[in-house]
Amino acid sequence: MPLRSNWSDKACPIARSLDAFGDPWCLLLLREVFAGNRRYDGLKSRLGIADNILADRLKRLVEAGVLVRQPYGAGARPRAEYRLTAAGADALPVLHALAAWGDKHTASPTGLSMDVFCRACGQLAGSADLCAHCRRPLTPENVAWVRPNAPGQSVNLEGVAAVTDPDPSP
Amino acid sequence: MPLRSNWSDKACPIARSLDAFGDPWCLLLLREVFAGNRRYDGLKSRLGIADNILADRLKRLVEAGVLVRQPYGAGARPRAEYRLTAAGADALPVLHALAAWGDKHTASPTGLSMDVFCRACGQLAGSADLCAHCRRPLTPENVAWVRPNAPGQSVNLEGVAAVTDPDPSP
Repeated sequence: MPLRSNWSDKACPIARSLDAFGDPWCLLLLREVFAGNRRYDGLKSRLGIADNILADRLKRLVEAGVLVRQPYGAGARPRAEYRLTAAGADALPVLHALAAWGDKHTASPTGLSMDVFCRACGQLAGSADLCAHCRRPLTPENVAWVRPNAPGQSVNLEGVAAVTDPDPSP
Repeated sequence: MPLRSNWSDKACPIARSLDAFGDPWCLLLLREVFAGNRRYDGLKSRLGIADNILADRLKRLVEAGVLVRQPYGAGARPRAEYRLTAAGADALPVLHALAAWGDKHTASPTGLSMDVFCRACGQLAGSADLCAHCRRPLTPENVAWVRPNAPGQSVNLEGVAAVTDPDPSP
């Protein structure tokens, strides 16, 4: 796991979650996959992350059961993309809570915030996990983000990967 | 900041939050301070953390404006405790979201979960930030935790530090 210590057997569920995906790079990778950036090259280019770190964190997220690796394409060179498992989709409130704090307490270089919309009611969600307007759970299937790097562009989040005989190699 | 890269000027508020307190040790330190474990020795003993890491992370959390260092006692040896700033208190939903994920998706060695109660209505909060029962914001002042390491023992969370001429040395 990303931590020096292995916290997977801790009594505290916060420590166990941190063990699974609490590394900062893991959380940014989850952000990207939620936004539909599923492939190695796209992740690398968007995050400016070194190959060894990217490969390591993707492997860890797959081992933690948060992402699943799925082959795509039919060329000679094997290619894979990374999709959310049901457990990975449930990490969405962590990202929403981080976004809300950052928007409130740090200075945005562009002056823009990240807006989380509930697609069930069309309103700003106003919560990490339960829409403050309609009270529906904020799952990827009913959430859209408007990110500061693409203002005015609403991105429907990725849903959970369909079970399609996932590639077992991490 | 705890990250190899400095993400404090990123457009994305998730990255900026991770820059402030996204290191796993920082998040566990926040957990402890929320639960009233404010002093160096108590933090060290509870987390089993090395001195150099503990001192570094406390310094970073103070620099990030999440904790404030306050002197206490009147002995010859200067002593300080760490309290939440208003910004630090606003990080509570991140911990709640991590706890909910860990309880749902990882195996607890004790079989016990971490329960978050809304003291305003007395019910399980059921959300990271807005009580699912009474819809009040889950601030430290109206939240209690029952942690897996102390079942049956409800801990009212620490509130924001009173402004008392904080010790400027980090």
